[in-house]
Amino acid sequence: MDNIPAPSRRRLVLLGRLLSNYRENQITSQKIEELTGWTAAQVRRDISLLNIKCGASNGYKVSELKTALASLSGSDGQKKRCCIVGLGRMGQMLLESTELYDSPFTIVAGFDSNVNRTEVLRSSFPLHPTTKLEQVIKEEKITYAILSVSADEAQDIASRLSDCGIHGIVNYTPCILSVPPKVSVENLSLLTALEILASQDCMG
Amino acid sequence: MDNIPAPSRRRLVLLGRLLSNYRENQITSQKIEELTGWTAAQVRRDISLLNIKCGASNGYKVSELKTALASLSGSDGQKKRCCIVGLGRMGQMLLESTELYDSPFTIVAGFDSNVNRTEVLRSSFPLHPTTKLEQVIKEEKITYAILSVSADEAQDIASRLSDCGIHGIVNYTPCILSVPPKVSVENLSLLTALEILASQDCMG
Repeated sequence: MDNIPAPSRRRLVLLGRLLSNYRENQITSQKIEELTGWTAAQVRRDISLLNIKCGASNGYKVSELKTALASLSGSDGQKKRCCIVGLGRMGQMLLESTELYDSPFTIVAGFDSNVNRTEVLRSSFPLHPTTKLEQVIKEEKITYAILSVSADEAQDIASRLSDCGIHGIVNYTPCILSVPPKVSVENLSLLTALEILASQDCMG
Repeated sequence: MDNIPAPSRRRLVLLGRLLSNYRENQITSQKIEELTGWTAAQVRRDISLLNIKCGASNGYKVSELKTALASLSGSDGQKKRCCIVGLGRMGQMLLESTELYDSPFTIVAGFDSNVNRTEVLRSSFPLHPTTKLEQVIKEEKITYAILSVSADEAQDIASRLSDCGIHGIVNYTPCILSVPPKVSVENLSLLTALEILASQDCMG
């Protein structure tokens, strides 16, 4: 599964999410088309990139498909360790979020350059001043960072995160981050998302 | 520009964002590679999909590139009208967000099924009970919706938004939404983003 192109991988991850709530034993590519809007042909091509043998004539076995999709994001039972950098409004909301309960991810540290925040805010994991970023990430074996600092801090923090071995950054800032090729970035900025929607709209 | 494939369009939107803070008059594809991590060849291919003639030998004229990229997301001077549906923690944070200031987008309405929230929360635009969704979206000519309801409400609201003519949904819920092909969805869920990062990581 080493050479799955990015758009297919993205759809396969979303398919895994979809199936996590799916109650039937079998699912056809037509049914997936109906649920997702991707064409059935596209769905079959994407699934053919996984190393599974479940035939497509009567549909795929949901359990086999789920197993293959889970291995795609390396769900090996070990929780993947994450940190939040930036505890302003967005970061504070993420501190309280329940979205990662029961997921393969766990947040184990938070950082902010404002020591008042790290001392006053309540959280189920330790909060540190940003000066300790490198030390804590290494000690805590953190692999993913959630970036919710202000726009003017974003690139500097992204560079520090890359230098200390972070594998991927979820970027809530509207900045485009320059990071080395080994670091992946997922942009979750509202403005970016709206611009992408609008660019699709203009093509309609 | 009607047939730009989705991954290229996504990169071009991000390039537009990058250039909005770029101070030089010219930029080369090599410089863009350095700043973004996309290869220079990929960058040249993407830019060739725009209808512009600025040659790539000495680099692109930043002003020409910006104009072409702005037209990609239809920045015709008219603000695009958006609403927020779901005023829980994420929705409330978005109410106060300054990210869309000076952008081509403006939020003109908020909705929640809990009338206490719509009456108590403070906002610079009107808040309505979700029962008025269809009416307000039509009256206010709203084209994009920001979805931050709970997971169990998400699909129902997405269907109602699609039925009343919304063009695109920014989906902050971890649910995969089933919408008609004419409606675009951008998934901004933290969990989805982390899963995509992890799937890239496993390929490394």
